[in-house]
Amino acid sequence: MPRFALKVEYQGAPFAGWQRQKDQPSVQGAIETALARLEPGPHTIAAAGRTDAGVHAVGQVAHCDLTREWDPFRLSEALNYHLKPAPVAIVACVQVTDDWHARFSALERQYLFRILTRRAQPTHDEGQVWHLKHDLDVEAMQAGADMLLGRHDFTTFRSTICQAESPVKTLDELRVERVNGFSGPEIHFHVRARSFLHNQVRSFVGTLERVGAGSWSPQDVGDALAARERAACGPVCPGHGLYLARVGYPEDVFG
Amino acid sequence: MPRFALKVEYQGAPFAGWQRQKDQPSVQGAIETALARLEPGPHTIAAAGRTDAGVHAVGQVAHCDLTREWDPFRLSEALNYHLKPAPVAIVACVQVTDDWHARFSALERQYLFRILTRRAQPTHDEGQVWHLKHDLDVEAMQAGADMLLGRHDFTTFRSTICQAESPVKTLDELRVERVNGFSGPEIHFHVRARSFLHNQVRSFVGTLERVGAGSWSPQDVGDALAARERAACGPVCPGHGLYLARVGYPEDVFG
Repeated sequence: MPRFALKVEYQGAPFAGWQRQKDQPSVQGAIETALARLEPGPHTIAAAGRTDAGVHAVGQVAHCDLTREWDPFRLSEALNYHLKPAPVAIVACVQVTDDWHARFSALERQYLFRILTRRAQPTHDEGQVWHLKHDLDVEAMQAGADMLLGRHDFTTFRSTICQAESPVKTLDELRVERVNGFSGPEIHFHVRARSFLHNQVRSFVGTLERVGAGSWSPQDVGDALAARERAACGPVCPGHGLYLARVGYPEDVFG
Repeated sequence: MPRFALKVEYQGAPFAGWQRQKDQPSVQGAIETALARLEPGPHTIAAAGRTDAGVHAVGQVAHCDLTREWDPFRLSEALNYHLKPAPVAIVACVQVTDDWHARFSALERQYLFRILTRRAQPTHDEGQVWHLKHDLDVEAMQAGADMLLGRHDFTTFRSTICQAESPVKTLDELRVERVNGFSGPEIHFHVRARSFLHNQVRSFVGTLERVGAGSWSPQDVGDALAARERAACGPVCPGHGLYLARVGYPEDVFG
């Protein structure tokens, strides 16, 4: 059976998350339903990152196995046709080898978190940014973020329902950046690691926001990490500012 | 009566346009209704540009007259409170002199038009870009755009229902730019003039798209302009890629 890798973009708002669920709309379910319009199902697709409810993607990667030798371009066109009007799109599609796996072949995941910092509510980006009415100290947040880099026991920044076997992960990048957004000042967090614990990025951003607002010092972030207990974490921020931005593989299959 | 200048951002989709209309939602109506929650009405506000149905703004400017000496910051906060959940926000507010007029004091208007050029449908920017599945030749479009710069009779690029007294306008800028958008390749048109005819920007962009697609030559745009007849115009493009980006005044009242 030919295997195809799909690069997927979606808005998180209408979905209960990536993962297929009974009686709830999911991104996985939307794509599997579209696949069933092309070849009789059931279909089960695997993704690099199982995003939570409300979380967006611009670079999610999944794979599917089909019986026909589809031309990858035609496959993406046919899927997009059947996905409409759901806010999900296949933005790239390539055939891969049988042993290539969207999740297990992935070497790293990169997330983007967007905060809009201004008094007025968002209009064009409602539901796509975390809106805060106060400004944040980017340098202080970066100093706090630097405490988290490297290999650590991230129990503090892990949801209590996280199913990962170990809380030890290696954080490769956590860069805080001030950006002149389309409709106002934004702060972007670029977070990169081989893999993440459940709610790890939202726990990082919610905690660093406390640093940016002046309630926590950067060292408080290091102390929270060292505590290795969930109660030491700052507030977990909402998911609708979060985007799965990119998944890295040994070879860039999408060229 | 103290007069206040308002910088307004909005999404065009839910509205029949800027201008108040009977039985149809309008941006002007939304703001006037919010004003009536602060001081008994009726209120009539004036705007720099009366955008059409579906057209967005990130820098529309309006003014209102009130009886109370509002603190401008509190006024914007109160208006934003009452505007929710409509996708309209007051992003800046200042007190101005009685002779300052959002429309008549304006020296120039600047519009942005966004095209998303990729095969897959938009997800995050649905209804906020004109989506085209083919790529466009930016250099050819710029060559066509250059034919339009300066003072001309723009009858070709003017809606038949345009109420302006004269079709003669001076186009100060029409810059075509390739942009790496948040979710794919975009082409932006930056258009600037003292004032515009009805549908002028959409007539420009629709015609230049024909040049970018190779159906028209850049010189065809010059010939269409010289024809001075509406029938010589290319197709008028949809309004949902259009943004009123900025209004220029003798002094930057918003600082």
